[in-house]
Amino acid sequence: MSSVFGEAFRISTFGESHGAGVGVVIDGCPSLLEISVDEIQAELDRRRPGQSKITTQRKEEDKVQILSGVQDGVTLGTPIALLVMNKDQRSRDYDEMQAKHRPSHADFTYHEKYGIKASSGGGRASARETIGRVAAGAVAQKLLKHLWGVEVTSWVQQVKEIDAAVAGTPTREQVEANIVRCPDQDAAEQMIALIESTRKEGDSLGGIISCHATGVPAGWGEPVFDKLEAELAKAMLSLPACKGFESGSGFAGTQMTGREHNDPFRGDGTEVWTTQNNSGGIQGGISNGMPITFRCAFKPTATILHEQDTVDVDKQNTTLAGKGRHDPCVLPRAVPMVDAMAALVLVDHALRSQRRSN
Amino acid sequence: MSSVFGEAFRISTFGESHGAGVGVVIDGCPSLLEISVDEIQAELDRRRPGQSKITTQRKEEDKVQILSGVQDGVTLGTPIALLVMNKDQRSRDYDEMQAKHRPSHADFTYHEKYGIKASSGGGRASARETIGRVAAGAVAQKLLKHLWGVEVTSWVQQVKEIDAAVAGTPTREQVEANIVRCPDQDAAEQMIALIESTRKEGDSLGGIISCHATGVPAGWGEPVFDKLEAELAKAMLSLPACKGFESGSGFAGTQMTGREHNDPFRGDGTEVWTTQNNSGGIQGGISNGMPITFRCAFKPTATILHEQDTVDVDKQNTTLAGKGRHDPCVLPRAVPMVDAMAALVLVDHALRSQRRSN
Amino acid sequence: MSSVFGEAFRISTFGESHGAGVGVVIDGCPSLLEISVDEIQAELDRRRPGQSKITTQRKEEDKVQILSGVQDGVTLGTPIALLVMNKDQRSRDYDEMQAKHRPSHADFTYHEKYGIKASSGGGRASARETIGRVAAGAVAQKLLKHLWGVEVTSWVQQVKEIDAAVAGTPTREQVEANIVRCPDQDAAEQMIALIESTRKEGDSLGGIISCHATGVPAGWGEPVFDKLEAELAKAMLSLPACKGFESGSGFAGTQMTGREHNDPFRGDGTEVWTTQNNSGGIQGGISNGMPITFRCAFKPTATILHEQDTVDVDKQNTTLAGKGRHDPCVLPRAVPMVDAMAALVLVDHALRSQRRSN
Amino acid sequence: MSSVFGEAFRISTFGESHGAGVGVVIDGCPSLLEISVDEIQAELDRRRPGQSKITTQRKEEDKVQILSGVQDGVTLGTPIALLVMNKDQRSRDYDEMQAKHRPSHADFTYHEKYGIKASSGGGRASARETIGRVAAGAVAQKLLKHLWGVEVTSWVQQVKEIDAAVAGTPTREQVEANIVRCPDQDAAEQMIALIESTRKEGDSLGGIISCHATGVPAGWGEPVFDKLEAELAKAMLSLPACKGFESGSGFAGTQMTGREHNDPFRGDGTEVWTTQNNSGGIQGGISNGMPITFRCAFKPTATILHEQDTVDVDKQNTTLAGKGRHDPCVLPRAVPMVDAMAALVLVDHALRSQRRSN
Repeated sequence: MSSVFGEAFRISTFGESHGAGVGVVIDGCPSLLEISVDEIQAELDRRRPGQSKITTQRKEEDKVQILSGVQDGVTLGTPIALLVMNKDQRSRDYDEMQAKHRPSHADFTYHEKYGIKASSGGGRASARETIGRVAAGAVAQKLLKHLWGVEVTSWVQQVKEIDAAVAGTPTREQVEANIVRCPDQDAAEQMIALIESTRKEGDSLGGIISCHATGVPAGWGEPVFDKLEAELAKAMLSLPACKGFESGSGFAGTQMTGREHNDPFRGDGTEVWTTQNNSGGIQGGISNGMPITFRCAFKPTATILHEQDTVDVDKQNTTLAGKGRHDPCVLPRAVPMVDAMAALVLVDHALRSQRRSN
Repeated sequence: MSSVFGEAFRISTFGESHGAGVGVVIDGCPSLLEISVDEIQAELDRRRPGQSKITTQRKEEDKVQILSGVQDGVTLGTPIALLVMNKDQRSRDYDEMQAKHRPSHADFTYHEKYGIKASSGGGRASARETIGRVAAGAVAQKLLKHLWGVEVTSWVQQVKEIDAAVAGTPTREQVEANIVRCPDQDAAEQMIALIESTRKEGDSLGGIISCHATGVPAGWGEPVFDKLEAELAKAMLSLPACKGFESGSGFAGTQMTGREHNDPFRGDGTEVWTTQNNSGGIQGGISNGMPITFRCAFKPTATILHEQDTVDVDKQNTTLAGKGRHDPCVLPRAVPMVDAMAALVLVDHALRSQRRSN
Repeated sequence: MSSVFGEAFRISTFGESHGAGVGVVIDGCPSLLEISVDEIQAELDRRRPGQSKITTQRKEEDKVQILSGVQDGVTLGTPIALLVMNKDQRSRDYDEMQAKHRPSHADFTYHEKYGIKASSGGGRASARETIGRVAAGAVAQKLLKHLWGVEVTSWVQQVKEIDAAVAGTPTREQVEANIVRCPDQDAAEQMIALIESTRKEGDSLGGIISCHATGVPAGWGEPVFDKLEAELAKAMLSLPACKGFESGSGFAGTQMTGREHNDPFRGDGTEVWTTQNNSGGIQGGISNGMPITFRCAFKPTATILHEQDTVDVDKQNTTLAGKGRHDPCVLPRAVPMVDAMAALVLVDHALRSQRRSN
Repeated sequence: MSSVFGEAFRISTFGESHGAGVGVVIDGCPSLLEISVDEIQAELDRRRPGQSKITTQRKEEDKVQILSGVQDGVTLGTPIALLVMNKDQRSRDYDEMQAKHRPSHADFTYHEKYGIKASSGGGRASARETIGRVAAGAVAQKLLKHLWGVEVTSWVQQVKEIDAAVAGTPTREQVEANIVRCPDQDAAEQMIALIESTRKEGDSLGGIISCHATGVPAGWGEPVFDKLEAELAKAMLSLPACKGFESGSGFAGTQMTGREHNDPFRGDGTEVWTTQNNSGGIQGGISNGMPITFRCAFKPTATILHEQDTVDVDKQNTTLAGKGRHDPCVLPRAVPMVDAMAALVLVDHALRSQRRSN
C-alpha cells in the first residue's frame, strides 16, 4: 500500500490539500512514552508554510490534535492518530490547473492512474501530505532519544552551486540559527539572497540536504533487501521533489580505489570504531556504531511563474503559467521532512532488531 | 523481514556461500507464463564468477534447477522455487578471516548483530546471495516483456573517472558486446585496461551503472511512500556495494533552475510525451510513459590484497591482507543484478496497479 | 501490526473509548466509486448503542465525517479517512475498574502487555473500536455491490438455546425487520424476551451469527495460508467476544462420511454448480461460485451486574460488580460488524485476484 | 501472498506433489539456536504417509535437507531453507482426474482461478504442501521450548461420533502411544476400528483435533485484528480439510450465561490465575497466562472410492470414482500439522511482543 510505511513502527498517512484534514495513524509505538502535543507541534512549525520570507507566503497554522493513543501525556501502546484540519484554501489560482497538467508535477500521472485528480493543489502529491510524516517523525525522534540516545540532524548543504562548509555534525540549534537551515552562516546568507532573487524572477531552485544520525549502536538494520541504507534511500526518494540519495561516500566514492575507500577498524577490547567513515556508518546494511551519514538531492520546485508548454486533460497542446504562492526552493522546509523520515526508518529498525537465542 | 522483497510478485531468497545451496522462492507469478530453465540460466551466466579475465577467477557453474511452480514449461500460478547447489568452496583462504573482521565488509556488523558469522565468504553479505535475485529477475523480465512489452537495460556507465558516451538506450546486444558491459567500445577498452592494471596492483575500483526501462505505460507506481523511484532506490541500495542512486536528472538536477529542469508536455490528443526527460520517466512517484532512467554508484570492492588495519573478534587491533580470488571491480557482474532488481520492482508495480471503479 | 487489516484494501483503525475520537484510514480503495457519508452512517446506525430496548441504553450519536479520499461524492483512489468524535463519557462508573481487573475482559492482559490501561471502558478492547471497522465495511460493501454484484447478509441465528429457522439467504430487510436482527419472527420474539429477562437479572447471553455472501464468482481466494475461509476465520475471531467460526458444514460436518459430505458438481457447459453446499462456497481456499456460508459463536457479554471474584492491579484478591449500561447480549449489534468484516475480506481478495499471463 | 505466513518469524512454502521437491524458507529465526536435521525429521515422520495401517499406504520417505541458515548445528540468523525432494509419483491413478474435477477437492476452483491445474495430486492443494509447514513448525517448537518453555500438544479428540475423554493436557508420549494419536486408549481403539471399517467401505471420516499450549506467559498477542485467537483460527483454517475452529468454550459457550462463563481471577500478589478457563487462555486477543486451548473440525476426506457425480474441464456432467491410496481419515496425520501451525503463530507473537518505553 502506498500510504503505509514501516513494519514495527508503522504509519498510515491520509489527506489531500483541499479535503477536511490531513494526518497520520501510528501503529506500534511502545507504551509509556511521554509525549506532548507541543513536541509534535514544534516539528510541524518547522515544516509550516509562511514561516519566513523565503518560503511560500501562504499562511497555514497547521495545529495538530491527538485523537487517540495518548492519555495524560503518556502513550498507551495503541494507535496514535494525529490530525491537522485544513482551512478552506480553494481559490481561483487552481481553476486553470483543473483542465491543464502542470509540467513536472504529478497531475498527468495521477490522472492517468486514477482517472480523476483532486480539485487542486496536487492532492496526495501536495507537500501538504508530509504533515502526517512530520507529526509521526516527532514521535519517532522522541522515542529514539528516550530509549537509545539517538539523534537525527539534517541541514541544507547546498542550494544550486552554493555549497556549505560543515565539519562534523551540527547541533539542531545551529541548523535553526537561520531561515534557510544551513549551519554555515556565510553560505546561508548567500543561499537566502539567491532564493530571494530567484523568487523575484519567478523561477525556482534545488539543492542538497545532508543528514547525520548519531548514537546508533552497532547491529541495527537487516542484511539483504531491508539494508539500513536501502530503507533510508526509499524513505528519502519518497519525499516530494527528491531525486537522489547517497550514503557515506556515495557517488564521490566511485572515484576512489579500495585502498583509499576502505575504513580501517580500530579497537581497544571493548569499543570498535573506524578512522574514517566512507561507509556512512553502515556496512552490509547494518549499522557499525559510527555516525550514519547520507545526502539527498532535491530538484528545483516545479511550480514557476513563467509560461510553459504543456497539455490539457484531452491530451491537446496548450500553455500554462504557475500562479499562487509557492516555495521558490523546497529545501528549508524539507529539512524537518528528512529528519522525520530518517527517524521513522531508524525507530522501525530499532524495534525490528532481531532477538538472539542465547 | 530482510530476505523477502515485493508485495504482489514477492521473492524470498536464501543461502550462504558455504551452505548446501542458494536460491529463491517466487510467490505471485501469474499462471500460464512460458518460462524455461535456459532463460533463467542465461541471466545467471551473466552474473557468474570466472566469466572473463576482469572478474574473479573462481569457477562456479551455478546451474539452476526449478523445484516447483512450473510444469511442462508453463507457470502454474504457485510458488516457483529455484535452487543452485553450492560446490564445496571452503578453503584456507578464509581461515584468518574467521578471527578477524575485514575492513568495509559486513563481518563486524553481522558479528555484532547475530553473535555469530558464517564460516567464510561473507554469509548472506556475500555476492553469492544475489543468485536468487538474478534468477527471480529472469522470470520478472520474461513476464514484463510478455505482458507489457517492457524491457530493462543496464550497462556500465563509468569506472572510476572513465565515463562512457552513450546516447539513448543501448540494446542488450550492445551491452554484451564486451566483457565490461559498456556499450561505448572505446570507453570499454579503457575500463578493461584500468581494471586489469588495478587488479595487478591488488587494489580495486568502483563506478556507476546506468539503467533504462522502456515500454512502461503511464500509471505504474504509487503515490506517497511506494513511489516508483523510492522502490527502485531501495532495490538498488540493497545490492552489495551500492552506495548511491539517482533518478532522471538526479544530483546534476540540483544545478538547474525550475525553468531549465521542468519537462514540457506535448500531445496529439491520443499520446502524451515530454520534450526532455529530467523526470526520468517518473512524476509524483508514477510512471509518465517516458523511459525510466536511473543511475547507481558502486563503491570499490572492499577485498584488496594490501595489508590493512583492522580488529579481531575480541575487538583488539590487528592487520589483515585479503587473499583469494576476488573481483577487482564489481560493475560488470553487477549489471545483471541491476537488471534483475529493476525488473522485480517494475513487475511488482505492474501487478499492484490499482483497479478503478468505472 | 495489530490495527492494520487487509493487503490490497487495507484499513488502519484507531481510537479509544475516552480519547478524542475513533476512526479508520482505508488505503487501496479504487478511484471513481460513488460513496456518500449517508451510506456510511447507515451502517454505523446499525451498530450504534441505544438503538433499541435490548441494547445498552448509552446514547451515542456516532456521526461520521469523511476527512479525505472522497471529493464531490466520488473516491479519488487516495486514503479515505473516516472519523467519529467521542462525546465525553468519562464517568464514575469506571472509577472502581481502574484499580480492579474485570473478569473475562481484556483489563488484565492489556495491563500485563502494556504496563498501562486506558482510563476506562476497555481502551482498544472496547466495542467502540469496531466503529472504524463498520465504517470501512460500508465502503467495502458498496464496492462489492458496484463492481461484482456481491452482497453480504448476516443475521442472528441463535441466542442461547433459541435457534432460528432460516431457509436460504434472507434479505437485509428481513434481517432489519426486528430489533434482534433475526429473520425468523417467532424466534426473534423469544430472543427479545429472553434478552430482556436476562438483563433484568443483571446477567448476559451469547449466541451464533450466520452469514451468507452471494454473487461471489469462482476463483476468489488464495491457496495455502490465505485461504478465503482462513481469512474469514481470522476476521471473525478478531471481533470482540467471538470465540468460534465454522465454514459450510463446520463442526456438524465431522459427523458425516465423505459420501454424505462431498458436494456433487453439475454443469451445463457454461455454468457449474453443486447440488448441496457443505463446502460453504469455498474449496481449497478458493470460492467455487456457490454462496459463501459461515457461522460464528459469540460468548455472553463479560460485563454483568453481579459481584464476581477478581484481582486488583496489585494482583491481590478482591471482588467487583459491573456497573453502568451494557449490552446484555452483543449479537444484535454484532450483525453489522460481521457484515463489515466479511465484506473487508471479500473486497481484499477481489482486488488481490491474481492476473494470468494469457 | 498466499504462500507466506507470519510477520516476525515468516515462512514461505513451495512445491507441488509432482514437481521436483517441496519445502520452506524460514526468515526471522533468531541466531544461535541449536537445531538438528533429526529434530526436523522427527516431526516430518509424524506427518509421513504410510506410517500405520490407518493412513494412506503410499510410501514416501520425505527426508529433509537443510540448505541454508544453519552451520555446525546452530542457526545463523539468516534464512533457513528446508527441502524434501519428491520421488517420482506420477501414476495412471491420476489420468482420469486430469479431465475431471474431483468433488469437494480444489480441482475446479484452481482451474477457474489459474486456467491450469497441476498434473495430479492436487498441486498446492495436496496435503504434501504441509511438509514445509511441519518442517518449519519443528524449528518453531524448538525455539518456543528453548527460549520460553512453551509446549504445544495436539491430539485427536473425536472421530465422527467417538469422543475421547481427556483430562488436562496429555503428554506428547501419551499422544504418540497409539496410531490414531488419541490419548484416551479406549476411544483410540474404537477410532482405529471405525477408520479401518470405513476404509474397507471406500468411504471416509472427519473429526476434531484439540490443542493445548502451555507455558505461554501473559501478554503475548495483539489487540484488534491480530488477536491471538484470530491468528490461530486463520492458521488452522488454512490447513487442508479444516472447516471449523473454536477457542476456549467456543460454540458450547453460547449456551452459558455470563455468570457461568466468566473466569474469576485469583491472585497472591505475584501470580494471577483463573479458576476456570472458558477464555481458553486468551482475553482481548492477548494471552493471560493460563493454558491456551482450542479445537478444530476436519471434514471427512474428499477422496472416496465410490462413483460420484461431477463435471469435466468442459463443464459437462460426468461421474468419477476415486482411485489410488488415500487416507480414510486425515486426523492422525493432521495432529503434527496442528502442532506446527500453533507453534508458528505463537513464536511469531513471541517475537512480535511489543517493547515498552519504561
